[in-house]
Amino acid sequence: MRILGVDPGSIRTGFGAIDSDGRHHRLVECGTLAPPPRLPLPERLHHIHAGVAALIARLHPECLAVEDVFHAANTRTALVLGHVRGVVLLAGAQAGLPVFPYPPATVKAQVAGYGRADKQQVAFMVARTLGLPGDGNAGDAADALAVALCQAGLVASLPQLS
Amino acid sequence: MRILGVDPGSIRTGFGAIDSDGRHHRLVECGTLAPPPRLPLPERLHHIHAGVAALIARLHPECLAVEDVFHAANTRTALVLGHVRGVVLLAGAQAGLPVFPYPPATVKAQVAGYGRADKQQVAFMVARTLGLPGDGNAGDAADALAVALCQAGLVASLPQLS
Repeated sequence: MRILGVDPGSIRTGFGAIDSDGRHHRLVECGTLAPPPRLPLPERLHHIHAGVAALIARLHPECLAVEDVFHAANTRTALVLGHVRGVVLLAGAQAGLPVFPYPPATVKAQVAGYGRADKQQVAFMVARTLGLPGDGNAGDAADALAVALCQAGLVASLPQLS
Repeated sequence: MRILGVDPGSIRTGFGAIDSDGRHHRLVECGTLAPPPRLPLPERLHHIHAGVAALIARLHPECLAVEDVFHAANTRTALVLGHVRGVVLLAGAQAGLPVFPYPPATVKAQVAGYGRADKQQVAFMVARTLGLPGDGNAGDAADALAVALCQAGLVASLPQLS
């Protein structure tokens, strides 16, 4: 199944699409959506929403996995992140996709085997799991790929019907 | 000019459209968008976004005035409110409307003359200013109408170029 993972951020929103049968995972595409700096918030949201909607239309994922951000540093950060996450979830709902939210600790535990793994450990495991070329650094997209892999792993661990 | 005011909420999102020349204000329409309870968040956002987009398409406002929610009680509340506010701002940006955010204290000071006015005082002044019929209670839409009136008042106080 094809999974689109998204890591909403106020500056950059990472995305990563993978194909997975629950055991074998293949990178389809990854990158970041970064609206031009100093754009007013409504236009930034427009940019991110259009970007996610275009990815869904082009890549045809079967579901969307989105990182939860319920533990932001403060209310203002949480609010801005909430705006971005809102338009990402909206793009999924508009396309009729099931949307799965994952808390960061669940993503880390699934991908790196440890709920408090740091960013580098997660990026390393993402690169190793997907056999990324070059220096294996997916950069800002690593967290988005981690969410997609988390979803793939959890789908695989569900009881199989037949 | 026609102004659409929106008060984003996690349960109910109030809206109120007014026509205003800066001195005289007339109610066009007000109400609330309330997604069915227990709908998953992505579908609730879809419902609210479609509702605001439909209002913009039908009422043709020249701008959108949206209450700021930067002082939510806690990060979780801020995050959920942020999701809703995000799709409201998006609907404005998609329609090419200028979007004006107002902190609650500015709205209260403009409409009720006092930045710490309570909900009832604001609702009373909204009803009196717009000459609302019946018991004059705009209910959940009162805050949205207050934001629209705030925008109308602030537009009127700008220097006129004639």
